[in-house]
Amino acid sequence: MTPAETVAAFITAIEEKRIADAVALAHPDISYENVPIKPITGRDGLTKTLEMFLGSASEVEWRIDAQHVDGNRVINERMDRFKIGDSWLELPCAGFFDVDEDGLITLWRDYFDMDTYQRQMSALSDQS
Amino acid sequence: MTPAETVAAFITAIEEKRIADAVALAHPDISYENVPIKPITGRDGLTKTLEMFLGSASEVEWRIDAQHVDGNRVINERMDRFKIGDSWLELPCAGFFDVDEDGLITLWRDYFDMDTYQRQMSALSDQS
Repeated sequence: MTPAETVAAFITAIEEKRIADAVALAHPDISYENVPIKPITGRDGLTKTLEMFLGSASEVEWRIDAQHVDGNRVINERMDRFKIGDSWLELPCAGFFDVDEDGLITLWRDYFDMDTYQRQMSALSDQS
Repeated sequence: MTPAETVAAFITAIEEKRIADAVALAHPDISYENVPIKPITGRDGLTKTLEMFLGSASEVEWRIDAQHVDGNRVINERMDRFKIGDSWLELPCAGFFDVDEDGLITLWRDYFDMDTYQRQMSALSDQS
C-alpha cells in the first residue's frame, strides 16, 4: 500500500469503528498528537483515545476535503463528523500522517480547535 | 516568485511587522480563514486582523517546522511566537496557502487551538 492508501484504510476503519483494524495500521511506537493536548505514544494510548472519541457517536464520518502527499507524508484537511443523538458534531481538522516503509503510521498529528469540539459535545450531550 | 517564495516573503513581512508589505502579497479578494473563528474576505479585514495579532507583541517569530508544496498550494506546520512583555506566547499552527499565477495569496487557512492562544495571552497580559 502507498502512504495515501494506508491513511485511507486507517480513516475508513475509524469511520466503521473498527478500532483494532485502525490500530493495526499504526506503528507500535506511533506518536499520536492532538495538538491542543499532550501527545500520546503507542498503540494502547491510541486505542483508548479512539474509544473515547468514537464511543458516544452512533455514526462517524471523516470527510476529506483536501489531501496532499509529499513522500511518506500524507496531509489532509478533514471535517470529522460524529453523530450524537439526532445531530452531527462537526470538527474541522488538519491532519499530518507519516507512514514508514512497512506501511505503518509512525506519526499522526491533528490540528484543531478544542473548544469547537467541546462546545458542540456539551450541547449535544445535554440534548440527548 | 514561486508559491513557496511568496509565502516565505509574506511570513517574513509579518515577522518584521511590515503589515502593508504582507498585505500587498494577498489577493484583493483573499479568503483569510482562522478556522476557530469566522473567515474574513479581502485586504482590509486581513490588515485589521494582523494589526490585532501583532499589536501587543514587541517581537514576532513564526518558526516553520515543516513545509510542503503541492502545485500552487503551500502547507506549513508553524510555531507562531509573539513576545509579550518579557515572555513568549507560542501557538502551534497548520497553515494552508493558495497562491495564484500572479503570485498573490488567494487563500490563507490556519488551523490552531484558540484556547492555547487566549490562555497564554491572558496570563502574559496580567503579568505585564
